[in-house]
Formats: sequence, structure tokens, C-alpha cells
Amino acid sequence: MKFKIITISREFGSGGRSIGKMVAEKLGIAYYDNELVTQIAEKSGFDETFIKECGEYASSPNRFLFNLNNWGTSYSYTISDHLYVIQENLIKELAEKSPCVIVGRCADYILKDRKDCLNIFIHADMEFRANRIVNLYGEREDSPEKRLADKDKRRKTYYKYYTNHTWGVAENYHLCLNSGVIGIDNCVDIITDLVLDKKENI
Amino acid sequence: MKFKIITISREFGSGGRSIGKMVAEKLGIAYYDNELVTQIAEKSGFDETFIKECGEYASSPNRFLFNLNNWGTSYSYTISDHLYVIQENLIKELAEKSPCVIVGRCADYILKDRKDCLNIFIHADMEFRANRIVNLYGEREDSPEKRLADKDKRRKTYYKYYTNHTWGVAENYHLCLNSGVIGIDNCVDIITDLVLDKKENI
Repeated sequence: MKFKIITISREFGSGGRSIGKMVAEKLGIAYYDNELVTQIAEKSGFDETFIKECGEYASSPNRFLFNLNNWGTSYSYTISDHLYVIQENLIKELAEKSPCVIVGRCADYILKDRKDCLNIFIHADMEFRANRIVNLYGEREDSPEKRLADKDKRRKTYYKYYTNHTWGVAENYHLCLNSGVIGIDNCVDIITDLVLDKKENI
Repeated sequence: MKFKIITISREFGSGGRSIGKMVAEKLGIAYYDNELVTQIAEKSGFDETFIKECGEYASSPNRFLFNLNNWGTSYSYTISDHLYVIQENLIKELAEKSPCVIVGRCADYILKDRKDCLNIFIHADMEFRANRIVNLYGEREDSPEKRLADKDKRRKTYYKYYTNHTWGVAENYHLCLNSGVIGIDNCVDIITDLVLDKKENI
């Protein structure tokens, strides 16, 4: 395997999680998403629902308000910071242990010093994602477009705060795929072929 | 062919032009880069060297200065605007004529209403690009890093001015590839397989 670790960042509703899961299955390697939540909950003592919200999303979609809230008084150490540190150590440990796919949670940034990581960003047009989340999670009071915009903004804010990088900018990743145009199965094939370095067999 | 037109935006030194050329050769379709320059020169009467500089790069790497210069007095129509309009019409004409690869020149934005376009962004780390431009174009008085930063900034400014989109943001493209990590040949294979919709044969 040319790359031991595959990190997947994704827009909400783009199918990034499904792609990550399928890649892990195809390669026969570990897949970390909810498993991370469970382990962080065990290590921190917090509830899994709280970790899910806090481990990847800013509390406010507004960057200024999130930063203000998170900074509090000088040198304060918030719950969000505490969970980030646990998450960071856990991701480093898991990457050391065995080949794996890690979805979200700034894993691309946390593992930036490793040379065996393939960092991927999955995105798609609003229409594709809106249809997908309604099919997967059903209708809600808010429109799917509003739900998508809110989730993306909170992920973006969280990522910026902890990495000082901009989420979704091509140069932060090795491969960015529009799953709506390229297709979920094609995304899986492109990633697995790259990981296995199968060029000569294509 | 699933996609008739392939547009390639690229960071300077990333190998985007070579990738575009190889894709066009592999698919047996037209390739437009310098050919565009020649045709724009014919239509406008300006010299090719001037078109090369003006057709893709802002005159100043500073966005504010370029905008100021380009706006001039209200409703002014600059040489840069004039060339952009010729370029826009030419790109639309060529895309209508036959399948092709078009490198740079905001082609992704100009052809945004077509459903048969695959829009690609090629980028790479500074070290890879710096080595590449020294090998290809030799040493200059300025360091390769400075030359890269300057070219990228001027392309970014030009793109922002004429499209109001941000160059290098994943959501503006269907596929973004780090050619340094993925490899030039792999990039060519990924693109041609997608265009030919070869998934089932991979």
C-alpha cells in the first residue's frame, strides 16, 4: 500500500462517510468515525451525543462568536479544547497502530507530519446533497439547504479554529472529488486504486 | 465520452499543462493552450506575448491595485476586458465545435452552463513546483518560490476579477489533484478514465 492512512473531510450530505466506509471495506482496513466518538466518550467521560456535536462542529456557525466563546478569558481551556486534545492523541495513536480510514475531525491536519497519508475532500453541489440528506435523514422543519449551510459553516469554523487552515481549499488535500458529478462508486475506485498504486493495472 | 470538454486550471509549475496535453493525446481530442493565444492575437491584432500575459494574469498581483487599474473611471472598458470578451467567445465557439481540453483562461467559468464539462484543478506543494520550474525554465534572478507565488497571485486575482469565484477552492471544480503526491501519470489516467466512464473496466 502506497498510503497507510486515508483521511476524508467532507461536506455534509456529499456521501463522504459512505465513500470512506466503502474504501475501508474494499481495502480491508479499519474505519474510524463513530468508533472515534465512542473512544473519546470513554476517555473524557462525556456523553456520545455531546462528543458528536462538539468534536467536529463549532458551537456557533459564526466564526467570531465561536472564537470569542472558545477563548473566554485569556488562557482559558474550554471543553471543546479538552476534547480536541483527546481526539488529537487518539487519532495519532490509531494511525500508528494499523492502516485505516479516518473521517472528519481534522485528521488531515493532525497527521500532517506523516508521509503515508492520503488526504481527501469530498464535496457536491447543493441539489445533490439536499436530495441525499432528505432521503437519508428525512424532512426537518428547516429546509435541507439551510441544514446543509449550517452544518458546513460550523465544520468550517471548527476546522479554521483548530488548524488555522481553510476547509475546502484544494491545496490542503491531495485529492478533492465532487461526488455528485463523479459518482460515489467512481470516487471509491479512484481512492482505492491510488492507495494500492494500481496505475500499471488500470 | 461522458464529458466532451475538459477544462484544466492549474498552479504554476504543477504540471497542469503537461497533464492536459497528455489527456488530449490519449483521448485523441483537441488541446487548446497556446493555440488560444494565437487565435486571440489574430482576432484582436495584439502581439502573442502581450496576449499571453494579459489573457490569464492580472497586471498587478495585488487585487486592489488590479481592480483599481481595471475599473479606471466608471464604465471604462480596458484592454484586459476587451481581450476577455474575445477569449470568452472563442472558448464557447471551440467547445461547441468538438471535444477538447482547454487549459486556463477561466474556461471552467466561461463554460459553466454546459453539462458536459469536467472541470479540473491541478496543484502541488511548493517544493515539487519549485524543482519543476527550475528544471523546465532554468534559474532566474528571483527565487523559484518568489516566481511561483507571484504567478499564482496574479492568476488568482485575474480569476476573481472576471468570475467572482475564488481560484483553487474545491467546490469550483469537479476534481482537484495534487500532482506531486498523486503523480503526473496517475492524474492523466484518473482523468481519461472518468471521461471515458471506464469504471466497470477498472
